[in-house]
Amino acid sequence: MTGKLTIYTLDWVPEGPRGFVRDLRLRWAAEEAGLAYDMGTVRFEDRETNHLESQPFGQVPFLVDGDIRMFESGACLLHLARKSETLMPRDTAGEAETTQWVLAALNSIEMVTVPWWFLKITGKEDNGLTGWVDRRLAQLESVLSRREWLAANRFTVADLLMADVLRVSLLRVHGDRPATEAYIKRVTDRPAFRKAHADQIAHYVAADKERSGRQ
Amino acid sequence: MTGKLTIYTLDWVPEGPRGFVRDLRLRWAAEEAGLAYDMGTVRFEDRETNHLESQPFGQVPFLVDGDIRMFESGACLLHLARKSETLMPRDTAGEAETTQWVLAALNSIEMVTVPWWFLKITGKEDNGLTGWVDRRLAQLESVLSRREWLAANRFTVADLLMADVLRVSLLRVHGDRPATEAYIKRVTDRPAFRKAHADQIAHYVAADKERSGRQ
Repeated sequence: MTGKLTIYTLDWVPEGPRGFVRDLRLRWAAEEAGLAYDMGTVRFEDRETNHLESQPFGQVPFLVDGDIRMFESGACLLHLARKSETLMPRDTAGEAETTQWVLAALNSIEMVTVPWWFLKITGKEDNGLTGWVDRRLAQLESVLSRREWLAANRFTVADLLMADVLRVSLLRVHGDRPATEAYIKRVTDRPAFRKAHADQIAHYVAADKERSGRQ
Repeated sequence: MTGKLTIYTLDWVPEGPRGFVRDLRLRWAAEEAGLAYDMGTVRFEDRETNHLESQPFGQVPFLVDGDIRMFESGACLLHLARKSETLMPRDTAGEAETTQWVLAALNSIEMVTVPWWFLKITGKEDNGLTGWVDRRLAQLESVLSRREWLAANRFTVADLLMADVLRVSLLRVHGDRPATEAYIKRVTDRPAFRKAHADQIAHYVAADKERSGRQ
């Protein structure tokens, strides 16, 4: 028996990041696992400093689960995965393989795609990371051309995270990768993704209304 | 009861990366935990393609632990940590906090420092990531100025990984961060780090001799 699960995100964001804020990963995992949860918020204004005691890098999401407080979406996903076999197999080998691909999504793919994207949106289209991004995505395409799911021959939290990382990195800019595109579609077609995505959008639309009411 | 633990690395590397190849993280963890292990190797030549069935991104380390095969140093560390309370507390809150900081080392610090360093060594000293690196290291300095260890008020695998990430990112280039420098020294002064580091150097020096014997 654990206590109440609360996922924290920002109270409002501009339109651009809606549908991509990383609380979506935790909403999605909770939906897949059938875990009841509430949403909590921190203010968008001063977000880099207003919740450092909960997240020392000034980011979201973080979660509170009874007595436990955690940040880092990958760590939160592993924590939630321990609560539900839907997210991660219970046997040691299946757990090891799932954990391996959770870390690969973050440290072999996102570690390259996020800085590449950051440089790109700050005006450095040709930024020295493009070759590295292309190589990693080609290696992943090779993996995904041989199987439907990353770990344990079934959907796991590793697919949830990898699909989110790939979705955010705007894959198509890097060329034609049919297995990867089919994979992203397969994973994000899941009802739990669609609900989490719709709920995040609705959360920010409601925040727009509250803001305009205050003005 | 688990089977034999084998940590895989490259059979040889040039002098530059010696002492920094990431098998060191796993050697170090095994030494801290008192786990017996063997070393295995893959060839340096053609390393990007000669072991893709073990590591689909062509990197090291990876490990074999009885029936389990795993890659991603962070995932391997979490796997080893489950075997030893020296590396991670056994209670759910302590495990969650440790996991959170393992992921933070990889996804909040290394995700910025490694691409920054990659751009720097490929000739882009002023590369657009410097401000981001500085901000993250300042946030971490703030955390480390208030405590000795990242999680659970004691050494854990999160300190092992964070110290290694910081050590590799050549911290001093970014200015004066006394708490972070004291932290790196505190963690890398541990006998298990010094043994793992010396063993890695010795492994490559022995490989030099074998190579010159072959020529």
